[in-house]
Amino acid sequence: MTKCEVRFDSHPEPIEVPVGTLLTEVAREGGVEIQQPCGGQGRCGRCAVRVESGQVRRRSVLRLSQADLDAGYALACQTVVEGDAAIEVPPPEAIQRRLTTDHTAPEAVLPEDYDPARSQSIRRVAVRLSPPSMEDQTDDWSRLCTALRKEAGVERLDASLEQIRQLGPMLRASDWRIALTVETDKSGGAQLIRLQPEDEAADAPLCGLAIDIGTTTVTVWLVDLLTGRVMREASEYNQQIARGEDVISRIIYAGKAEGASKLREMVLGTINGLIEAICERTGVAPADIAKATVAGNSTMIHLFLGLPPESIRLEPFITTINHLPPLPAADVGIAMNPAGIVDPLPGVASYVGADITAGVLSSGVRASPAVTLFIDVGTNGETVLGSSEWLVTCACSAGPAFEGAGVVHGMRADTGAIEEVWIDGRTYEPSCRVIGNVPARGICGSGLISLVAEMFLTGLFDKGGNFNQSLGTQRMREGPHGAEYVVAWAAECEGEEDLVFTQVDLENLLRAKAAVYAGFNVLADSVGVPLDTVEQVLIGGSFGKYINVEKAVDIGLLPDMPWERFHFLGNTSVKGAYWTLIDRAARDEIAEIASAMTYIELSADNSFYEAFTSALFLPHTDLSRFPSVKAAMT
Amino acid sequence: MTKCEVRFDSHPEPIEVPVGTLLTEVAREGGVEIQQPCGGQGRCGRCAVRVESGQVRRRSVLRLSQADLDAGYALACQTVVEGDAAIEVPPPEAIQRRLTTDHTAPEAVLPEDYDPARSQSIRRVAVRLSPPSMEDQTDDWSRLCTALRKEAGVERLDASLEQIRQLGPMLRASDWRIALTVETDKSGGAQLIRLQPEDEAADAPLCGLAIDIGTTTVTVWLVDLLTGRVMREASEYNQQIARGEDVISRIIYAGKAEGASKLREMVLGTINGLIEAICERTGVAPADIAKATVAGNSTMIHLFLGLPPESIRLEPFITTINHLPPLPAADVGIAMNPAGIVDPLPGVASYVGADITAGVLSSGVRASPAVTLFIDVGTNGETVLGSSEWLVTCACSAGPAFEGAGVVHGMRADTGAIEEVWIDGRTYEPSCRVIGNVPARGICGSGLISLVAEMFLTGLFDKGGNFNQSLGTQRMREGPHGAEYVVAWAAECEGEEDLVFTQVDLENLLRAKAAVYAGFNVLADSVGVPLDTVEQVLIGGSFGKYINVEKAVDIGLLPDMPWERFHFLGNTSVKGAYWTLIDRAARDEIAEIASAMTYIELSADNSFYEAFTSALFLPHTDLSRFPSVKAAMT
Repeated sequence: MTKCEVRFDSHPEPIEVPVGTLLTEVAREGGVEIQQPCGGQGRCGRCAVRVESGQVRRRSVLRLSQADLDAGYALACQTVVEGDAAIEVPPPEAIQRRLTTDHTAPEAVLPEDYDPARSQSIRRVAVRLSPPSMEDQTDDWSRLCTALRKEAGVERLDASLEQIRQLGPMLRASDWRIALTVETDKSGGAQLIRLQPEDEAADAPLCGLAIDIGTTTVTVWLVDLLTGRVMREASEYNQQIARGEDVISRIIYAGKAEGASKLREMVLGTINGLIEAICERTGVAPADIAKATVAGNSTMIHLFLGLPPESIRLEPFITTINHLPPLPAADVGIAMNPAGIVDPLPGVASYVGADITAGVLSSGVRASPAVTLFIDVGTNGETVLGSSEWLVTCACSAGPAFEGAGVVHGMRADTGAIEEVWIDGRTYEPSCRVIGNVPARGICGSGLISLVAEMFLTGLFDKGGNFNQSLGTQRMREGPHGAEYVVAWAAECEGEEDLVFTQVDLENLLRAKAAVYAGFNVLADSVGVPLDTVEQVLIGGSFGKYINVEKAVDIGLLPDMPWERFHFLGNTSVKGAYWTLIDRAARDEIAEIASAMTYIELSADNSFYEAFTSALFLPHTDLSRFPSVKAAMT
Repeated sequence: MTKCEVRFDSHPEPIEVPVGTLLTEVAREGGVEIQQPCGGQGRCGRCAVRVESGQVRRRSVLRLSQADLDAGYALACQTVVEGDAAIEVPPPEAIQRRLTTDHTAPEAVLPEDYDPARSQSIRRVAVRLSPPSMEDQTDDWSRLCTALRKEAGVERLDASLEQIRQLGPMLRASDWRIALTVETDKSGGAQLIRLQPEDEAADAPLCGLAIDIGTTTVTVWLVDLLTGRVMREASEYNQQIARGEDVISRIIYAGKAEGASKLREMVLGTINGLIEAICERTGVAPADIAKATVAGNSTMIHLFLGLPPESIRLEPFITTINHLPPLPAADVGIAMNPAGIVDPLPGVASYVGADITAGVLSSGVRASPAVTLFIDVGTNGETVLGSSEWLVTCACSAGPAFEGAGVVHGMRADTGAIEEVWIDGRTYEPSCRVIGNVPARGICGSGLISLVAEMFLTGLFDKGGNFNQSLGTQRMREGPHGAEYVVAWAAECEGEEDLVFTQVDLENLLRAKAAVYAGFNVLADSVGVPLDTVEQVLIGGSFGKYINVEKAVDIGLLPDMPWERFHFLGNTSVKGAYWTLIDRAARDEIAEIASAMTYIELSADNSFYEAFTSALFLPHTDLSRFPSVKAAMT
């Protein structure tokens, strides 16, 4: 038997082992500690090590990207030595960081040739007027308009009565030198947002807001409109959560006395609180904020603007308006310049809103002829299939199970939430990663996906979702509502009861994942594109950022295809709002996207029900659709 | 000596007199009473009688129109009998009525082919929508816009957030049958003013307002926009009078703390009080009023809209804005539909405002190639000279003397005001007509013109305006501030002091009339048109309605030309507002008028000062300009 020597960076002596030994065995031999939360099944990625030199053979590279491989990473539990080798064991934090930041969305980067003057609709124009005289008694307004035409090519200026009232005194106090902030249109018209003395304007910021109103989280980006750059980002839970976790419960609450106005107040409170905090940190005044673009699902946009949402919930599911006009900030109630412009981005239908069109815009679906699947993983399960040529979309009403609702110990992705689980295939003991490294309080969406995948692959339930109580582990037991698996004992999680995952929880999750996957099927069938020919899968939504794709494939939530085709884009909605704020062409494009998208109403579609039923199994009735899972199962 | 018989209708027996006897002599002979306030000088017109049959010779027909002559009227003091005749003596009231309503403005009459649908920008459109279904999930707004495009050719609909909020519930409550009140533009766009269930709209009026904000009087016409007809008119003193009688004192008041907002409140109070009264009488609700057009001088428009007026008063006399955009009623504060449109009409300069452009529009100056002089007799003495080809204008700052200010016993044309005076050429005793037939309280503008003319022609002062105290009448005396003439004794007017007209009063009036007449001269000279070739003189302003043209010519206020060329048009300003309200083409025309008018600033014009100095005399330094007055003087 040929021997070889393996050196670990953390160990003084080389370890001699037979060629063909697993790296985890080598480490155990030499007393080198390597984490293996999944019990050496090659699924958790936590045993990743870097091969500094020497020959190894990687039996499985799940959870490793091409970049990882290029950098020399290997899974210790899935890699055998084929000769002398030097191995670096990264500190556990480094692996964890690499895993969680892996594939996260790139920051919004401005193109090098970005020119605010050309791309942006908001302009600040300084004009110096010749004062009136007995020979030139032109009225102030005409004098201004003439100068604006000459100096900035503005053919028509619209202003409110309140702004016209300010003009005369300001011209005289500023020695006839003023600056105008205007929203320009392409036909030479302009709408006045702000009048300032030229001196004052020279030092003042000129800002905009890109706002994403999520059902759970509201995100605000403060943008410097003079450069197009993001100055500051801030997010906060939508205060409306206190009146319902999902859009349906919000709509029901809106139907109560004062309910709608309370919800409007709450989301405005959230937005304005974020703006206040950002302004304080950056020294920008609300009056310096000239424009805001707003993305969000149709219910969020309706509640935010005080539009009655009832008809969204009731068949035939109708919004009041999908393409809203630009609105005066004072009417909307955002804490910015009251004469500023709020531009709610266009949606497509009751359950495919401006968050999705903004996502399609910012994720570049339209920019490529490649067939792309765009998913916003969340309550509504909005999905878009398309390319630069065509777009179809649906919302599969997944329900809030993946957001932690309808699951006994489900919770939002907050401190104390289990976000990833590995189960040892021999002992059935779980290892968990908890947000904030504190005792677990519950399980969030990505944790649930991870847990279901692990339980399935370790045989804790079968492909029909039936819990197996004959495995000899005390973690699997009969609970008050049927079978349940103990994810953490009460003592571990400093709670009064064990943290469990039940048969009923699983059924809810299976319905949710089946709805999402059935949605993909219906979209693909509607245009005759086989799902496995999809060239890229873009995953948006801040929740989507944390999904473990492999595990999502394992449970049949995402289609089984090479890992490279999946891209996590983070909050594509706020990014879309940002692009429409700083680029007039992007604003035109999102309107085209909204108009071009063919919406398929799944509740009126028989094929959806069939696809849904087939997808209720793990990973799917038709195992041939999930070859990698089939391989893992055997 | 040939005799003839004259019969008076009021007298039983015919009276035999020599041929050639004055009718007043015949009447005296027979004991028939005929009023002769001017003492038989043929100037007052109060001795008018109707010649039923027989031959008479009229020596003078002053104060009689061609229509009067055609009807057989003659002045008894200026007419001799040339044979048997039958004479009707109208009751004094009839003469008085005839005199005061004489030549008053014709009512606004709609052309026979007037078609609201073609001419008006406001439309009410009923649309019936097909309800949404699972097969047609179009949003409410798009559904509405599509129907509106099909049924009414509206390509773009603008609405406020508040209106969009109403849409969904209203569509569902009204079985998808609603009516929209919109303001349409010529390019297929429309602005939403009101959404109503179709059933409700079918019975509801659709109205507009034509508003004239005078410095003294505010006039409101309620117009049925479905037919174009005027439903009701109402006028009231502008409450602002309590803070100053003329525009200059109002501007000064506006400069005080809270002054401008108080003045705005006052004029809105006046307007809204009138609207409330009109609505109560007609059963129209404020929400039924969709549009208002507003005329008024530039100061009134500024104060009404809360625009700072200071720069109007200070050299170089600049307005904030002459061509205002249409404004939301809610911003302006008029008691009408808050989403309705207030359209302030365009002005030309600080002292030639929208009242003048509206007057030029409604008086038809532009409709005829004839050279026309348009005068708004009042404080500002705005004058327009022009034709269909060209327009020049000026404001001669006459001051408020003709409105009763700067004259000891001057007052507005209100109950108790002397509005006409006749002075007996032998006794120097005056006869007065007092508004309301009550004891006199003061003298209004037309009364002052009349008084000055009578005093001049009877020699109570000379052409230089020097009072003659050597005529042996106790009515002429030395008062505390120089010479004065007693128009009414304290006992007659139930006052504590005699009602007098002083040398200082005269000087103020002479400056005012000289300014007006000098304005005519400068305008005529500026375009090289001799004043006496002016083909018509149109006199606007509610004050102008009561002017005795003959007497105004006597004092040199109006140019001396045949009486037929003068036309009293009453409130041409509100009429112009009315036309722009009901006719889109008229709205375009008034904008053209405002742009086409060449404004001549008199205070920067040397020739004005010369013309003014020459016009300070009675009637003028150059008597050849006033042949009829010259004849009357001799």
